[in-house]
Amino acid sequence: MGEGGTPLVTVRLGGSAAGDRAVYVKDESRNPTWSHKDRLNLCTVSAALYSAAPGIVVASSGNHGASAAAYASRAGLPCVLVTYDGASQAMAEFVRAYGAAVIVVGREDRLAVVNDIVRELGFESVSNRTPTHTGHPFGPEGYKTIAYELFLQLDRTVPGSVFVPTGYAELLFGIWKGYAELVELGVSSTVPRIYSAEPAARGPLHAAMAARLPATQVPAGTTIASSIACTASGYRGVVALNASHGAAVVVSDEQLTRALELLSRQGLWVEASGAAGLAALTQLFDAGVDVPEPVVAISTSGGLKNDPPGDAHVKRIPADWDSVRRELRRLGAV
Amino acid sequence: MGEGGTPLVTVRLGGSAAGDRAVYVKDESRNPTWSHKDRLNLCTVSAALYSAAPGIVVASSGNHGASAAAYASRAGLPCVLVTYDGASQAMAEFVRAYGAAVIVVGREDRLAVVNDIVRELGFESVSNRTPTHTGHPFGPEGYKTIAYELFLQLDRTVPGSVFVPTGYAELLFGIWKGYAELVELGVSSTVPRIYSAEPAARGPLHAAMAARLPATQVPAGTTIASSIACTASGYRGVVALNASHGAAVVVSDEQLTRALELLSRQGLWVEASGAAGLAALTQLFDAGVDVPEPVVAISTSGGLKNDPPGDAHVKRIPADWDSVRRELRRLGAV
Repeated sequence: MGEGGTPLVTVRLGGSAAGDRAVYVKDESRNPTWSHKDRLNLCTVSAALYSAAPGIVVASSGNHGASAAAYASRAGLPCVLVTYDGASQAMAEFVRAYGAAVIVVGREDRLAVVNDIVRELGFESVSNRTPTHTGHPFGPEGYKTIAYELFLQLDRTVPGSVFVPTGYAELLFGIWKGYAELVELGVSSTVPRIYSAEPAARGPLHAAMAARLPATQVPAGTTIASSIACTASGYRGVVALNASHGAAVVVSDEQLTRALELLSRQGLWVEASGAAGLAALTQLFDAGVDVPEPVVAISTSGGLKNDPPGDAHVKRIPADWDSVRRELRRLGAV
Repeated sequence: MGEGGTPLVTVRLGGSAAGDRAVYVKDESRNPTWSHKDRLNLCTVSAALYSAAPGIVVASSGNHGASAAAYASRAGLPCVLVTYDGASQAMAEFVRAYGAAVIVVGREDRLAVVNDIVRELGFESVSNRTPTHTGHPFGPEGYKTIAYELFLQLDRTVPGSVFVPTGYAELLFGIWKGYAELVELGVSSTVPRIYSAEPAARGPLHAAMAARLPATQVPAGTTIASSIACTASGYRGVVALNASHGAAVVVSDEQLTRALELLSRQGLWVEASGAAGLAALTQLFDAGVDVPEPVVAISTSGGLKNDPPGDAHVKRIPADWDSVRRELRRLGAV
């Protein structure tokens, strides 16, 4: 469906220690279901087709579910989304639009229900099936294409650093793997430093790196970056960070909000979690950390994926020029 | 910001008189603000910059407003959106995200308020300023790139027909103009038939063609295709349809719903109005009308642009396998 081939958009950091440096933002909202997950699900649903699975099951309350449902519909396979009662109706509608069945259970029951559906119906799970999140083996193969595209978009060169919004670290691992394979193939000679960007309220990969463990779990703190708010992160993230001489960075909601504003004031409205890479980069620049340039920040999805506001409709003001001018002043527009 | 370069996705029509014919869907949801309007606003906001306007004003309750706000922010110009109290909060948030001021007045007052802001503040209007909708002169220049891209995507050939969701016919006119200029430049020798697709409840271009008038106005009937629910359509649409030997088609909400389902069951979730082109095509195929192939249907935006559902959250069921299986049966998934 024309997944991938997403543009690199230049964004100026402005202010602070970052000076007037520019970074490249890879805008993954330009995919078929408007997130990076389409690269993964092209591979996971293809794997299901080739193994003759009778259907797809996915545990998600966001981008992954919609993307899996879209690729399942394209493949002619039934799809079941297992979600929980904190998920938004808007995201459920998004998934249902592709013809998927939406099953809503308690948050803690999702993994068991996915495993029930796999066992009883033989459906292929395109989500993780273990508590430590080992993911779908073919998922990162789709993300590798980001490394290939970046290589071509930067005139067959490797950037100094790539900053990646990180939940279960599948995207992070896939990008590193793509670059590592370019080296193995003799196409390039180096791999960029890969930096993970997790919400500070969680940060299981950051915790694993700090404790020098292959994987770990952390308590469930709250964050606006709901799409990457994970309590477990696995060996793949650790491998990618160590092998690329990168690092694990955690960002606060305040830093995320500033990064979101910086992006939207340059034309890119990004999902809250999608700004984590830029937030991590700005934090390192501000702290005087040496970050090899040029820098690419991956933006995973667009702001339309944020939960919609509570009120249905906007409220009007009188249309005479005095009232309009007063309103423009109140809004700081004039 | 990497506007344009959108993919052509093959969609099978299936069933009915259309047989197993495939059409090409050009998915304009892959633009920076996820609609075709980014092509237009790259040109209108650039025009404002070159004429040294101190700001942008746009009258919209949808895609055009968000796109204008994004390009204004990228250009460093203030932006005012003039909308009405039937607009959704979700769309207002979308526009505010780019830093635009949102002014909400009565539906019938919008044009006067736009003209007040132009007169009092010298802002450039990227929206129409006349009751018959003559639009912004540079807008269709952006849409011409769709014709150029299609020419390259179809191996330097011109398709038989292009079906276009049509409100004020700027997109329609721009696509025709692109093809007509390729002929004038000696790059190609023919222009495809251009078909407009309007909601049956309105259809001002259809009315103008039927009455052999250069432009007309119609009463405001209701339709799910709110983004193209216009009561006026101008000379540009008439020129494009006549010069290309195309036709004006109107589609019912029922036909739109069927086209939306056909698209979403093949992986493309489309805004209601975005399916109008495919709905018009299916209608002509079913009626046995000779439509020159290959056929391209333009899909203007994605389903995330539809108004969000009323309820905030989904409701859960018990997680035991008997309950899950019963729910899957109720949903028709097994």
